[in-house]
Amino acid sequence: MGVKTDQSLKYNKYAYVCFLCSVLVNIFLSYNLFVGKKWSLSWSTNAAAEAEAVASISCSGHGRAYLDGVVVDGKPVCECNTCYDGPDCSNYILDCPSDVNSGDPLFLEPFWMQNAASSALVVSGWHRMSYQFGDHTATSQELEKSIRKLHSIVGNAVTEGKYIVFGTGSTQLLNAAVLALSQDNSSTPSKVFVSIPFYPAYEEQTEFFATEDYEFYGDTSLYKNNSDDTMDMIEFVTSPNNPDGKLKRSVLKSPSAKAIHDHAYYWPHFTAIPSPSDEDLMIFTLSKLTGHAGVRFGWALVKDKAVYEKILTYTGENTFGVSKDTQLRALKLLNVALQGDGRSLFKYAHETMRNRWESLTETVSLSTRFTVQEIAPRFCTYFQNVRGPSPAYAWLKCEREEDELCYKVLEDGGILGRPGTRFGASSRYVRLSLIKTQDDFDQLLQHLKILVLQEAGGTRADI
Amino acid sequence: MGVKTDQSLKYNKYAYVCFLCSVLVNIFLSYNLFVGKKWSLSWSTNAAAEAEAVASISCSGHGRAYLDGVVVDGKPVCECNTCYDGPDCSNYILDCPSDVNSGDPLFLEPFWMQNAASSALVVSGWHRMSYQFGDHTATSQELEKSIRKLHSIVGNAVTEGKYIVFGTGSTQLLNAAVLALSQDNSSTPSKVFVSIPFYPAYEEQTEFFATEDYEFYGDTSLYKNNSDDTMDMIEFVTSPNNPDGKLKRSVLKSPSAKAIHDHAYYWPHFTAIPSPSDEDLMIFTLSKLTGHAGVRFGWALVKDKAVYEKILTYTGENTFGVSKDTQLRALKLLNVALQGDGRSLFKYAHETMRNRWESLTETVSLSTRFTVQEIAPRFCTYFQNVRGPSPAYAWLKCEREEDELCYKVLEDGGILGRPGTRFGASSRYVRLSLIKTQDDFDQLLQHLKILVLQEAGGTRADI
Repeated sequence: MGVKTDQSLKYNKYAYVCFLCSVLVNIFLSYNLFVGKKWSLSWSTNAAAEAEAVASISCSGHGRAYLDGVVVDGKPVCECNTCYDGPDCSNYILDCPSDVNSGDPLFLEPFWMQNAASSALVVSGWHRMSYQFGDHTATSQELEKSIRKLHSIVGNAVTEGKYIVFGTGSTQLLNAAVLALSQDNSSTPSKVFVSIPFYPAYEEQTEFFATEDYEFYGDTSLYKNNSDDTMDMIEFVTSPNNPDGKLKRSVLKSPSAKAIHDHAYYWPHFTAIPSPSDEDLMIFTLSKLTGHAGVRFGWALVKDKAVYEKILTYTGENTFGVSKDTQLRALKLLNVALQGDGRSLFKYAHETMRNRWESLTETVSLSTRFTVQEIAPRFCTYFQNVRGPSPAYAWLKCEREEDELCYKVLEDGGILGRPGTRFGASSRYVRLSLIKTQDDFDQLLQHLKILVLQEAGGTRADI
Repeated sequence: MGVKTDQSLKYNKYAYVCFLCSVLVNIFLSYNLFVGKKWSLSWSTNAAAEAEAVASISCSGHGRAYLDGVVVDGKPVCECNTCYDGPDCSNYILDCPSDVNSGDPLFLEPFWMQNAASSALVVSGWHRMSYQFGDHTATSQELEKSIRKLHSIVGNAVTEGKYIVFGTGSTQLLNAAVLALSQDNSSTPSKVFVSIPFYPAYEEQTEFFATEDYEFYGDTSLYKNNSDDTMDMIEFVTSPNNPDGKLKRSVLKSPSAKAIHDHAYYWPHFTAIPSPSDEDLMIFTLSKLTGHAGVRFGWALVKDKAVYEKILTYTGENTFGVSKDTQLRALKLLNVALQGDGRSLFKYAHETMRNRWESLTETVSLSTRFTVQEIAPRFCTYFQNVRGPSPAYAWLKCEREEDELCYKVLEDGGILGRPGTRFGASSRYVRLSLIKTQDDFDQLLQHLKILVLQEAGGTRADI
């Protein structure tokens, strides 16, 4: 009986310990469930679950599904990278040409997937329904602060003493700037110049919207040797330049010449930053900074108040400013970019672009048929070191006499670039985009290697 | 001993039952925490908690805090309705004029607060970074589907056989439509007409962006008696009209006259829907449908392919289409609007507008000094009944001979409307916005009652 009692006591002790543990576990679980952050969510829960469910759809690393994708069988379909198809983008399409025409900056997509938590955004149904912010402008003050802070950290532009005006993409601001700088009611329209090779939109847009106050005129060389100081001139200066990545300065020096500095690519991704730009009118875009081309957001830094006000009037009459959703998203993304003084984003972006450039130039260096632009190493004040090139585009030249139509040569080799003629240059040139997805870049390299191999009499089977 | 053993057994039984209960509670809590939906959230949790924390900031019902509001003491400040201030908007500002100038459609804000869960949106950092959707257009197919479905349910527009083009607000589409309808390279520019009273933006925008192909001309009466059939004419037709809420038709009947039908207000909120509009070019906006003026989104329904393509080119050259964030949000909001065939949104919107109109006209009916427009009851095919007026604006007239400057009369009475002269009309008229917040409307009514009371020799103290 004594033994039994002892055993009974022992069991009781075990039971007591188990019970105590169980109660402690209950307290822990209850705390997490009822007090912890997760449980406190209410109206945002379904939307969050929906977004995470879509994000978890597997597209084999060669695509992704979106919340607003086309719905099949109750869920959005995978949208595949070029040369991939199938329900989960796992099928590689044979003999598929590499499409490196557009400047779609998807090289940064993996960065944002890696930073999913900090870059996620929850928008309430009643978020900013008004035309205006609390200060009766159409411009987010917090976003303006973040932009100024970013320029200060990167050291690529002087914002002190400059007004900031937002645009629905820098695209809207380019034409707004032309209109703002052109002379009202002048007897002759202001003439818009740009140096070859240049981004095609300047010409297309200026001609499409031309008023009586301005007209597209063409290459700066048309004027340089002219001595008419009274001609009203507006020059687009793209630095680094699209397509060739060169840092540029205005070349028209007449007293009546004004310049629009398009600094879309003036970020550590694409170029060394030798010093902050301090021009009278500078335009930047989110597209080439964070990679969000689909988010139509750009900004202009403007010294002159009258020019600033005219650009503001333009965006007001045109679109009533920038959509509040777009401003909210830009703020969220810029605040992630600002973390750790931008090291995380700029390191990722620069390394990706530098690696791509090195792979590309390694291949091209084996060729006598093709050459690409040379960009000298420079000291970068942001990274505090001398760094080599990492441009957004390769400006490729066909060197053989018979390869006059370079675009055609590449097309026959399975590479779809953008013909030099689109940039006002010779058809011996083609722009190849290096900022699209890794798949796009890999396919470009693959096709280029075959072309280079063929120079030495090799065949496709050799690689 | 026997008793002790019995007791011991009894305790053991209790302990066993308690332990079993505790384990069951463990299982239940674990299930909720680890398997249930709440726990499964990962990258969206912080953003959701952040948005809910901001939404829970109390602004006394006279304001709201936003995620991108100006931050003070670590959290966004309350943004107060007109005539309220203080950290939580609880302070009513004495002798504050009622500001009913703008068409800010905040009357729908409470609807979206009531529908917080279904209208919340979670945007991932990598959402739609590309310029294009999967089908290589800049236009969301799902959003287009929702728009067509909504028109079909409401019965306010025929979408079959029409192209849809999106704009950064209908504002962008108004000018795009003018450019698309004007004659290229004609010796004389197309002339843009509109009937007085009209929405001021038509004139301001057309003049601001005027090219060689079109010019603002003025009131349709300038042409009506003219018989020049060769003149290229474009007529803005706003139906229901802003400012007076009347249903309108084009008045220029020449073979070379084209019309842009601005149907911003052609929703059951503001008017009976007698039949679906089936015009060649119709423009709609999210702003006056869901109340999201801050979301810059509009759309045009276009019959002619060439006109559609020119509008599409305009939006492309101007802003590269509509921001993907904006399209995503518009999709979310329209899908809430579509729930229950739109009954919930349209019932709320119509009742609010009808109640405001009834309160306003009740006050005005006591006056001989002021009158407002009359709108006849009509059968509404959406609500399937005859319904009275519920316009977005009161088009108020000062009837006394000495009250020629009606805006001034109202201003002296603490009401800031928009002068009739802005709409091309006489200074005897003033537009009063009825679509702002309930606070704005209440203040308008309060000031108007005092003005009407003063006619009978009453004083402020009487009400």
